[in-house]
Amino acid sequence: MTFDALWASILEVGREPATGGYRRFAWNPADLTLREWFSGCAAERGMAVEEDRNGNLWAWWLPPGWTGDPEDAFVTGSHLDSVPDGGAYDGPLGVVSAFAAVDTVRARGIVPSRPVGIAAFSDEEGARFGVACVGSQLSTGALAPARALALRDADGITLAEAMAAAGRDPAHLGPDPTLTARVGAYVELHVEQGRALDLVDRPLAVASSIWPHGRWLFTFTGEANHAGATRLVDRRDPMLAFASSVHTARHAAELHGAVATFGKIRVLPNGANAIPSEVAAWLDARAADEDTLTRMVARISAEARDHAACDRVGLRVEAESVTPIVEFPQGPRDRIARALGELGDIPVLPTAAGHDAGILSAVLPTAMLFVRNPTGISHSPEEFALPDDCRAGAAALAEVMADWVTAEPDS
Amino acid sequence: MTFDALWASILEVGREPATGGYRRFAWNPADLTLREWFSGCAAERGMAVEEDRNGNLWAWWLPPGWTGDPEDAFVTGSHLDSVPDGGAYDGPLGVVSAFAAVDTVRARGIVPSRPVGIAAFSDEEGARFGVACVGSQLSTGALAPARALALRDADGITLAEAMAAAGRDPAHLGPDPTLTARVGAYVELHVEQGRALDLVDRPLAVASSIWPHGRWLFTFTGEANHAGATRLVDRRDPMLAFASSVHTARHAAELHGAVATFGKIRVLPNGANAIPSEVAAWLDARAADEDTLTRMVARISAEARDHAACDRVGLRVEAESVTPIVEFPQGPRDRIARALGELGDIPVLPTAAGHDAGILSAVLPTAMLFVRNPTGISHSPEEFALPDDCRAGAAALAEVMADWVTAEPDS
Repeated sequence: MTFDALWASILEVGREPATGGYRRFAWNPADLTLREWFSGCAAERGMAVEEDRNGNLWAWWLPPGWTGDPEDAFVTGSHLDSVPDGGAYDGPLGVVSAFAAVDTVRARGIVPSRPVGIAAFSDEEGARFGVACVGSQLSTGALAPARALALRDADGITLAEAMAAAGRDPAHLGPDPTLTARVGAYVELHVEQGRALDLVDRPLAVASSIWPHGRWLFTFTGEANHAGATRLVDRRDPMLAFASSVHTARHAAELHGAVATFGKIRVLPNGANAIPSEVAAWLDARAADEDTLTRMVARISAEARDHAACDRVGLRVEAESVTPIVEFPQGPRDRIARALGELGDIPVLPTAAGHDAGILSAVLPTAMLFVRNPTGISHSPEEFALPDDCRAGAAALAEVMADWVTAEPDS
Repeated sequence: MTFDALWASILEVGREPATGGYRRFAWNPADLTLREWFSGCAAERGMAVEEDRNGNLWAWWLPPGWTGDPEDAFVTGSHLDSVPDGGAYDGPLGVVSAFAAVDTVRARGIVPSRPVGIAAFSDEEGARFGVACVGSQLSTGALAPARALALRDADGITLAEAMAAAGRDPAHLGPDPTLTARVGAYVELHVEQGRALDLVDRPLAVASSIWPHGRWLFTFTGEANHAGATRLVDRRDPMLAFASSVHTARHAAELHGAVATFGKIRVLPNGANAIPSEVAAWLDARAADEDTLTRMVARISAEARDHAACDRVGLRVEAESVTPIVEFPQGPRDRIARALGELGDIPVLPTAAGHDAGILSAVLPTAMLFVRNPTGISHSPEEFALPDDCRAGAAALAEVMADWVTAEPDS
């Protein structure tokens, strides 16, 4: 099947007509539909499918005569879930390209000398339960099962309840002891989430590193009161300290050559005529190195505390997740460049976005390919990639796959 | 029945265990339970109950031998709904005090020379559909039925659908042509929503006026994007201009001796790793006179536009509701003071909170009694009034009722 037909087959799944964006959240109906689609694609190709204990999907193309579990496989893929009103490309482009690459490699008559896997990791965006890369973090042991099971969505439903409702047994969550034996290398293709390729006018790049990044919850607590009848001097309004902290974060990002964003907020009671009792706001912060990130978040926290004290409100700052820098290993990067031949002078870029490939890099060799994003827009219905660039990405992934599976397994 | 027993009978209705606050919203299960409670209280007292075309409840105590509709009645009451996680007193204190006052007046053997009514107006807070005083505004013609029917709650349910689900026919909504003939005067008892009585150490007050006030929707529109991968210079983040406007509103309120509050906000897509595409924020603003209010809101809007332009985001400002100043008429105020005898030097206070009595004052004589709020906290689970002050309020309301119904009907 061509890349285009595969791509078209999921375009309407989980798309919100009002916004044009996607709402594919862990274990929601759209996510379940995409899991069935994944199994269908694998079945059409005679690939065995398994969903591991953490909800990650795997499809296997085994060498002729192979028996037993896959070992030292070349695995490619990405994720199928989205942020709220996300775009079509972030995640699914890597999974669709993986199936298209298998078709291309097979059409050339190549017989793999090692297993080929396609993976779709569960809940990469963390849109529903607030923690990103849940599937890959559980499998590598980076996220404790007890913590994952207790995560709650906005309706108070735990991850355990959501998995049970989808017919999965949440008691199985935990590290995957077979992961490193099965997967020899993981190469994730992903749409770029910035404009670097557009600025240099190139369709593809290889990742050098993922910026260290994290998410911190700032909870400002004041006192709910009537917005009309309460004198300004009697107020303890947490919206003021939050507003000051929005500017503090932006300014700190400028000073540190980094990024810091308050993009999610929960106000209680959120009534038009009520002074809030609480403003909970999530800070997303990323920097080129860990020391800079630590210093920047410390500065934002300290200034936010000053704002809170000034407005007589409380402030609690909690690190929800902090991911160290990922430096992708040189070996796989060189191998990809070599496999791509005349594309061998392919640009090498860092990225400030987190990925399952970054999580997996803690335990096995990983690499990433980026496809140009002409506007740089990401996590938005406006996210876009040119059809020619997407096809070029799938073709490049096929080259990399062909190179990997025709070499000696130990190379 | 004593005030205390009546008060205790609704304390658990619509109370959220997690917060201790009330979630009594128009036509929700708690609201329907309170409507049944109202009818039960009326039935126990042999008072005829009717729900008018707009969902407002009326209970009637008619003079002996009275036939036909009530006319020129003395009506007291308030509302039964709450803001999100509101307190126990705001609204229900006036309705409970009304039933207790009827019991007190009857216990004295007083036979009314004119009808006595108890009213509970529908959807005073506007917590669910975003417009306050829906019941009284519809009955006086201040709110067009077509606009009311189209109001939507956070789940997209229209007022028309919510009323139909509760077994009401929304086609009946509209001005009540019998209102002014039936109601000779409306006296609403309400917990104070500030600390003025606490500061002068008095249990009760009479209202002089309601500050002009209104609600404006500020919609800041930017561009959703990845919070990690989007350079600061490429962002159009509407959270920044919103944050600036929070401080602008506070500062403008200080300059104008008024109040201005952003207490409700809706962020899209509200993802921790997404720059928002839109921040919708509701400004509640109130001032001692209409000119000051107009100037203050114009200043906030103009500065918010500057902030938006500076951050390259759009801004739309819409007035959702603007209520002119209400000056309560001198006649009923004097009559209340006289009826309260030694309490006759009762404090006279303006209030910045809106009330059904303010809406009704456009078409008939109204007055308000306030009961001390020792902390001044309102629209919060912490809202509180001393039991002795509540009993004093109900007793004072009985005095006022007795005075009104024993005088000549035309006085």
